[in-house]
Amino acid sequence: MGDPCGIGPEILAMAFARGALPGGLVVGDVEVMRRAAAIVGAGERSSLPVAVIDRAADAASVPPRCVPVLAVPGLPAGLAALPHGRVDAAAGAAAAACIRHAAALARAGEVAAIVTAPIHKEALAAAGVPYPGHTELLQAEAAEGCVMPPVRMMLANDELKTVLVSIHVSLRDAIDAVTRDAVLETLRIAHAAAARWGCPLPRIAVAGLNPHAGEGGLFGDEEQRVIAPAIAAARAEGIDAQGPHAPDTVFMRARRGEFDLVIAMYHDQGLIPVKYLGVEQGVNVTLGLPFVRTSPDHGTAFDLAGSGRADPSSLVAAYAMARRLSGAA
Amino acid sequence: MGDPCGIGPEILAMAFARGALPGGLVVGDVEVMRRAAAIVGAGERSSLPVAVIDRAADAASVPPRCVPVLAVPGLPAGLAALPHGRVDAAAGAAAAACIRHAAALARAGEVAAIVTAPIHKEALAAAGVPYPGHTELLQAEAAEGCVMPPVRMMLANDELKTVLVSIHVSLRDAIDAVTRDAVLETLRIAHAAAARWGCPLPRIAVAGLNPHAGEGGLFGDEEQRVIAPAIAAARAEGIDAQGPHAPDTVFMRARRGEFDLVIAMYHDQGLIPVKYLGVEQGVNVTLGLPFVRTSPDHGTAFDLAGSGRADPSSLVAAYAMARRLSGAA
Repeated sequence: MGDPCGIGPEILAMAFARGALPGGLVVGDVEVMRRAAAIVGAGERSSLPVAVIDRAADAASVPPRCVPVLAVPGLPAGLAALPHGRVDAAAGAAAAACIRHAAALARAGEVAAIVTAPIHKEALAAAGVPYPGHTELLQAEAAEGCVMPPVRMMLANDELKTVLVSIHVSLRDAIDAVTRDAVLETLRIAHAAAARWGCPLPRIAVAGLNPHAGEGGLFGDEEQRVIAPAIAAARAEGIDAQGPHAPDTVFMRARRGEFDLVIAMYHDQGLIPVKYLGVEQGVNVTLGLPFVRTSPDHGTAFDLAGSGRADPSSLVAAYAMARRLSGAA
Repeated sequence: MGDPCGIGPEILAMAFARGALPGGLVVGDVEVMRRAAAIVGAGERSSLPVAVIDRAADAASVPPRCVPVLAVPGLPAGLAALPHGRVDAAAGAAAAACIRHAAALARAGEVAAIVTAPIHKEALAAAGVPYPGHTELLQAEAAEGCVMPPVRMMLANDELKTVLVSIHVSLRDAIDAVTRDAVLETLRIAHAAAARWGCPLPRIAVAGLNPHAGEGGLFGDEEQRVIAPAIAAARAEGIDAQGPHAPDTVFMRARRGEFDLVIAMYHDQGLIPVKYLGVEQGVNVTLGLPFVRTSPDHGTAFDLAGSGRADPSSLVAAYAMARRLSGAA
């Protein structure tokens, strides 16, 4: 459901109204989803019913153009009365509870995948949730004992999948984060995730860090010192890792079908090509969790929340990607 | 003409045979171009005539499917007898002489633009030419006294133009090269060049260096410390510079028409999006010279030279771009 005060509930309702989330269900609060359905129904001049279901499997029997909601037990009361576009501790607590409930359903095999609607960092913090976002929350839910599974972000659309060694750090720090172990771990995670989505031996291209992948050490030696050894180690483990390849052409080559995945050394290297053809086509996928998890590529958009004017297309793309990656489509 | 031992002469002949260089002429050696025309003619089972012209203006009266060659005086003898695919001092000297002659023609206004066919660094060095490549040679030809004009590389295709602050340096050095002065100089060069191609007040987007352009200093402060001040200084000079924008979406936004040009902070940031849709569509343009200069995006390809199997499409794209940028098309 995401944060009840953000656009999450209404883009979900909107997407269900359009029949764009076949087989899906909302893990959330019934009243919040009724409020969202009313906003959407008003815009489309027809009512949009909410169907309360008890088990995830019941989503299949809900009629189309209807919002199936699996109520999460123990949510704070009065969520549907919270004003839109405001940071609220109760909203943050509810968002976190929904994520945890969805993770439990996924781990139990009751749902094939999780698509997370946007949450707000400050609301999470106000609720005392000790994690900054979805990914860390889900890692904690997937932990075995005290060990959180290492994860990596993949950005994917129909024609390109890139997996990132690092994400939200400065470019200078991103260079430092390109270590043999980090690249090898990224390769392992990407390889294992691909098997999960039906590609048991993915052809993985590894991008270099420097222009022309360093041109034989002429400008930068990370390729020789760090990336090539990581590729060699991965290959010794049976991973079809190739490279390091020149960053300026490796994504184009993957788009043409030469590789199934590209490992990008830093955020923008991987995100620029995926987003180039249109931002709504890029879906965030978290690799390394014991279930498929995708998310739309935007936040709670507090300025739009409650207006019914938010665009559900990134959510719909995230849903379609989750279906494909989990074998449900 | 490029290096006589590389693929330059034959891709030129091939492109003229296909009528793909309307209004163009080769600045080169007549015998070398005859040899290239014979290679191409043999492949296409018809002869390809070479027309020797005395002045650039005469190219217009040469019949189609014919190779107009303006002979450069004083070239070494016997160039057409040199084996293909070999580094040769005479070939390097000839290539440099052709470039200098073309630059003189451009400065005199006898040609509208220069497209440089590939040359070989080692051949140039063997000939004692004190410059590593085309760009430096052309800068020297364009120098006023001892001052070489500052230049920047632009990579452009039909839908995106990116101008790079730095090119062939390691990513670590590229970060250090992002200074206020370097960004401001890049903006000035891009702005002035755009006026030359008929866009007097280009909307120039400046990419950030860090993910999300640093997210307000959260990851990286170059945007606040260096890039924003350069943008402010450029705006004070009447340049329509905007940003710094998040690198992962700025190229997509330019592709959609929001900006005329994007200033990229480093090589791969700018080249990845331009090349993403196909490497042959990206044309190198040197900005800052007193004439338009473009080049295909490949080298002498010594392994292919003489075989008639090289692909002229990047040369043809470079030619079309030169025509557009110089107002000849």
